[in-house]
Amino acid sequence: MSYTLNQKVSNLEPYEPISGHYAIRLDANESFLEIPEHVKADMLSRIANLHLNRYPDPLAAGVCERAGKYLGVRPELITVGNGSDELLTLLTQVMMSKGEKLVYTTPDFSMYKCYGYLAEVECIEFKKDANYRIDVDKLIDLIQSEGARMVIFSNPCNPTGVGISREEVLRLVEGAPECLVVVDEAYMEFWDQSVLDCVENYDNLMVLKTCSKSFRMAGIRCGLAISNPAVTNALRAAKSPYNVNSMTQAAAEALFDYPHELDSATQTVVDSRDELYKAVKALAGKYPGKLSLLPTSANFVYIRMPAGQAKRIFEAMKAEGVIVRCMGDCLRVTCGTEYENTEVVRLLEENL
Amino acid sequence: MSYTLNQKVSNLEPYEPISGHYAIRLDANESFLEIPEHVKADMLSRIANLHLNRYPDPLAAGVCERAGKYLGVRPELITVGNGSDELLTLLTQVMMSKGEKLVYTTPDFSMYKCYGYLAEVECIEFKKDANYRIDVDKLIDLIQSEGARMVIFSNPCNPTGVGISREEVLRLVEGAPECLVVVDEAYMEFWDQSVLDCVENYDNLMVLKTCSKSFRMAGIRCGLAISNPAVTNALRAAKSPYNVNSMTQAAAEALFDYPHELDSATQTVVDSRDELYKAVKALAGKYPGKLSLLPTSANFVYIRMPAGQAKRIFEAMKAEGVIVRCMGDCLRVTCGTEYENTEVVRLLEENL
Repeated sequence: MSYTLNQKVSNLEPYEPISGHYAIRLDANESFLEIPEHVKADMLSRIANLHLNRYPDPLAAGVCERAGKYLGVRPELITVGNGSDELLTLLTQVMMSKGEKLVYTTPDFSMYKCYGYLAEVECIEFKKDANYRIDVDKLIDLIQSEGARMVIFSNPCNPTGVGISREEVLRLVEGAPECLVVVDEAYMEFWDQSVLDCVENYDNLMVLKTCSKSFRMAGIRCGLAISNPAVTNALRAAKSPYNVNSMTQAAAEALFDYPHELDSATQTVVDSRDELYKAVKALAGKYPGKLSLLPTSANFVYIRMPAGQAKRIFEAMKAEGVIVRCMGDCLRVTCGTEYENTEVVRLLEENL
Repeated sequence: MSYTLNQKVSNLEPYEPISGHYAIRLDANESFLEIPEHVKADMLSRIANLHLNRYPDPLAAGVCERAGKYLGVRPELITVGNGSDELLTLLTQVMMSKGEKLVYTTPDFSMYKCYGYLAEVECIEFKKDANYRIDVDKLIDLIQSEGARMVIFSNPCNPTGVGISREEVLRLVEGAPECLVVVDEAYMEFWDQSVLDCVENYDNLMVLKTCSKSFRMAGIRCGLAISNPAVTNALRAAKSPYNVNSMTQAAAEALFDYPHELDSATQTVVDSRDELYKAVKALAGKYPGKLSLLPTSANFVYIRMPAGQAKRIFEAMKAEGVIVRCMGDCLRVTCGTEYENTEVVRLLEENL
């Protein structure tokens, strides 16, 4: 006999990044903006002063304090992780027991289900309507009838760009009081329906934030989970003691010390998103039946196409050095610089 | 009804770091050495050139290549994580299924059992003998009779400093072919019994390495899991796609680009460890019955004391601004600078 892999991992495919050089990357919903030089200089100076032979601050207190100030929440309510991914892992693997029920919605960020699968929780799908909307009453019914312990969704949604209002989210939280409602607000900086200010009002609300999108720092892997003290203390206790490295802490601290820069970067991206949306919407009008899209509240547009077209156009764009995200019969295109937006729209039209 | 925490986390205590200022920290087995200025300058220059608005390389290929070269293993066999902690989390939570059996040894690094508990695997204790030695035949018997899927231990051991020989480890690997043998070699740079060169010879051997000890970079949180291609591919597939941030990757790349600096730092720490051991051993001879210790193969000494003494001495040292680690009736003291070693030995003697 010899060692055999655990069944749940034996069929997983390793993540294969798109390799090779591409002139334009609009596939990962990153910000096309880098942090300003003076913020970068400050960040580097803080990193230069770190004693990297020592372990990092276990609770990333400096990040909690500054992010809390910027976001308007008490530092004690924040858990810092290596991107939202680590926090999602903790949520599914230690905040739930094996066999408990997790509700995820479709279409939505595919990793929710993936982490649930690896955690051996029972993953229950909730399908959105044809316009990618969550019917909150139906979702509450599903959660209650299944006795689900957790529901996770992104708001606004990745990949659709469609969100549900703050009132709807809170109605869900109130309608499913025994279920932890995890609202991934990775893209909420681009919209205005956050429920972050409500986390202390409920036993069962958690909001996830990330430095990877509007905050322009996907490379530092810094995510935030914000909830009431009871849930926060449990999450903090369950995480690895020194989970977030000292450099990421220093970089995030520098980031939140320049709140006006954060606001202005968000506005620049929103403007770019609006331009990209307008241009793609114009194509939809010009070529009826070739593509359609809904208004987006995030930093990307989600384009629906007739069967088979998305993959073909994705490959054609890739051959020209432009990478977007192909998801079934849809393309998700992150907004970019004016040049990048123009190029991607040009290639889209050329290949329709 | 309202939301109730999952039972397994509801009783966990959040990790409480020792706060306040202490002149001498010999509690966390970090290196007392910082990286040389020219390495640091190189590292900072690499970090300055990163595009932090973009996600990191998912597989940390640059780290795998350079670490592989230094350690003498193929890059394809390495999985990089946020410290060994993330890798241990993955091992217990996704490389095992709920209810499968994990064997851990005592005394050993307490997080192995903790991660196993959170992963809902069955944790089975294997007690070392009075001299902290693992009886490999007995351990094989336990693994085989229980049908254990994984065994994890540190070699040399944290906190005892005692190791088992390379031959013994390989005998275990061969004697328990259906069980993944995870050898945490966090401290193996200070000894010479690594089995790293054997990972490709077995289905069931994994070695963990860390940049936190002899490599002097606890602050960057970089751990390595090295195994055969089948296990490595599963681990890579199960991890979060962008788990290790770009700055940690750049820092680790810089680190491994200066192999002679790594070797010389290790030697300096070994010399300090030998001095500390000699001085504490002298105390043991001078004050019979007050303390005892075994030879250590790591960067710390583990001092056994009569009941109740360790805690008292720990507190007395703490009051003087010197922090060591108190573990039951033992003190674990990391070696430090000549001054730090002298101070800690002086305080130890004063408080015996």
